[in-house]
Amino acid sequence: MGRITTLRPVTRIALGEGVHRRADTLAVEEPLEIRIGGVPLAVTMRTPGHDVELAIGFLVSEGVISERADFRAAIHCGGPGTGGAENTYNVLDTSLAPGVRLPGADEARRFYTTSSCGVCGKASIDAVRTVSHYDVVQDDVEVEAGWIAELPDRLRAEQAAFDKTGGLHAAALFDAVSGELLVIREDVGRHNAVDKVVGWALQEGRLPLRSTVLQVSGRASFELVQKAVMAGIPILSAVSAPSSLAAELAEQTGLTLLGFVRGRSMNVYAHAQRVLIDAATQGEEPVREGQAER
Amino acid sequence: MGRITTLRPVTRIALGEGVHRRADTLAVEEPLEIRIGGVPLAVTMRTPGHDVELAIGFLVSEGVISERADFRAAIHCGGPGTGGAENTYNVLDTSLAPGVRLPGADEARRFYTTSSCGVCGKASIDAVRTVSHYDVVQDDVEVEAGWIAELPDRLRAEQAAFDKTGGLHAAALFDAVSGELLVIREDVGRHNAVDKVVGWALQEGRLPLRSTVLQVSGRASFELVQKAVMAGIPILSAVSAPSSLAAELAEQTGLTLLGFVRGRSMNVYAHAQRVLIDAATQGEEPVREGQAER
Repeated sequence: MGRITTLRPVTRIALGEGVHRRADTLAVEEPLEIRIGGVPLAVTMRTPGHDVELAIGFLVSEGVISERADFRAAIHCGGPGTGGAENTYNVLDTSLAPGVRLPGADEARRFYTTSSCGVCGKASIDAVRTVSHYDVVQDDVEVEAGWIAELPDRLRAEQAAFDKTGGLHAAALFDAVSGELLVIREDVGRHNAVDKVVGWALQEGRLPLRSTVLQVSGRASFELVQKAVMAGIPILSAVSAPSSLAAELAEQTGLTLLGFVRGRSMNVYAHAQRVLIDAATQGEEPVREGQAER
Repeated sequence: MGRITTLRPVTRIALGEGVHRRADTLAVEEPLEIRIGGVPLAVTMRTPGHDVELAIGFLVSEGVISERADFRAAIHCGGPGTGGAENTYNVLDTSLAPGVRLPGADEARRFYTTSSCGVCGKASIDAVRTVSHYDVVQDDVEVEAGWIAELPDRLRAEQAAFDKTGGLHAAALFDAVSGELLVIREDVGRHNAVDKVVGWALQEGRLPLRSTVLQVSGRASFELVQKAVMAGIPILSAVSAPSSLAAELAEQTGLTLLGFVRGRSMNVYAHAQRVLIDAATQGEEPVREGQAER
């Protein structure tokens, strides 16, 4: 399922101890060109493997497709039947269902630009709200804070390649009702890891992803929040910091955003009403948003 | 000089201890649209501040400009004299010197695509080699491993905002001869932090950046190596892991690439000949590449 890691000779220098040549395991990074009906749409630097999911997730994030029926097939150019030369497995051509509106030239910039001379967070947020097929605000799922606290460890335990390379981001989708891990994907790009998860979900007929939590290994950027919203995910949990625009977009679209989920603590940056404080773990009377002390 | 951080209310949950509402400092992330002569070229999600440097560095990375004379001026749209409405400071229009060839529609994809149906690391590497204005292979600067080991701490010491937000990447340029810190820039995007450093250097008339070391706070991707090469930087040092393509591109373009530079050890992934092992810190006979044990 792809070349996730590779070995490479490295000169290891430890001051006062010595210099050694040895083989080091690196995360593979290669470009993937995504095409629709032969027309190039985007190039992303990604870790090979789950390329079809990546392409599908990307198309969901861009608002091009939103359900399984929208997607027909995908083939690596140069593969059987395409008449290409050497297949590098770095070009993926997708075909969509008739009736799916293809993105125009301006489409890629849709999330960012307004018609006038102005790009701002507000415009970006409005664009996402307009384009999204799902209304995540309506998802009234609730999760225990104690369960959320376990997700980063569960993510790491499942991360096959991270400990070998230190270079891969991971994204995992959990069922908020059963607590079950649904899928985990790794990539040098955190946005790619999320796209692969979303692509998997569309293929499984699971969009919108109601009652799920998306756990990511790094920071939460505007882009990750956007991808979660476009897939209908109600809760995004990050091990590290969110950006200002990530918190703002989460607030306005109804996404519950958690950051610094580490050990036994976490920060909730938006829509804390979905995070329950168990009385047993609380130790005192639960304090919910609105009643909270300063 | 820009809105680097912002305060936002957060619900802090510590299991067994309690729930508190407090203000948290977040790294600011906002889109910047870069234009040339009024024509939109790219949009990047960045931390405001040093926007002109960011735009210049981006243009250097793309191979559009390579020296101070190529760049004329930059102005935020909506600013004085542009007749715009509200100035969001998120659109920057640049003007270049007559004779500078403007990038065409295919330009943005130049690094990735070949004329046939194939995108691969090899093609990307060839493209960078063709486009780069500098030949970094020729830079015979040498640095002590012990000095390199200090750079991550010096970077952190200078990082004004990181400890407050945990959400900013940093890039710093050091003079390999004097050992002096030349400039440091922070951003939610590591590629932006590097672009800001390169943009600063062009404005100072310092390109190509011979005899310098670029220290970055995170991982080393293909993109960061590409930016270093385009700016003529001979040595790139990263706190975390490089990707496979980063190491490959460094090897082929003559860049010295260090990763996992932490405490008193480091890995050299390409062109170790520029890294000197001091006999005093070595403790035994220095082992150089080629003689190294396995």
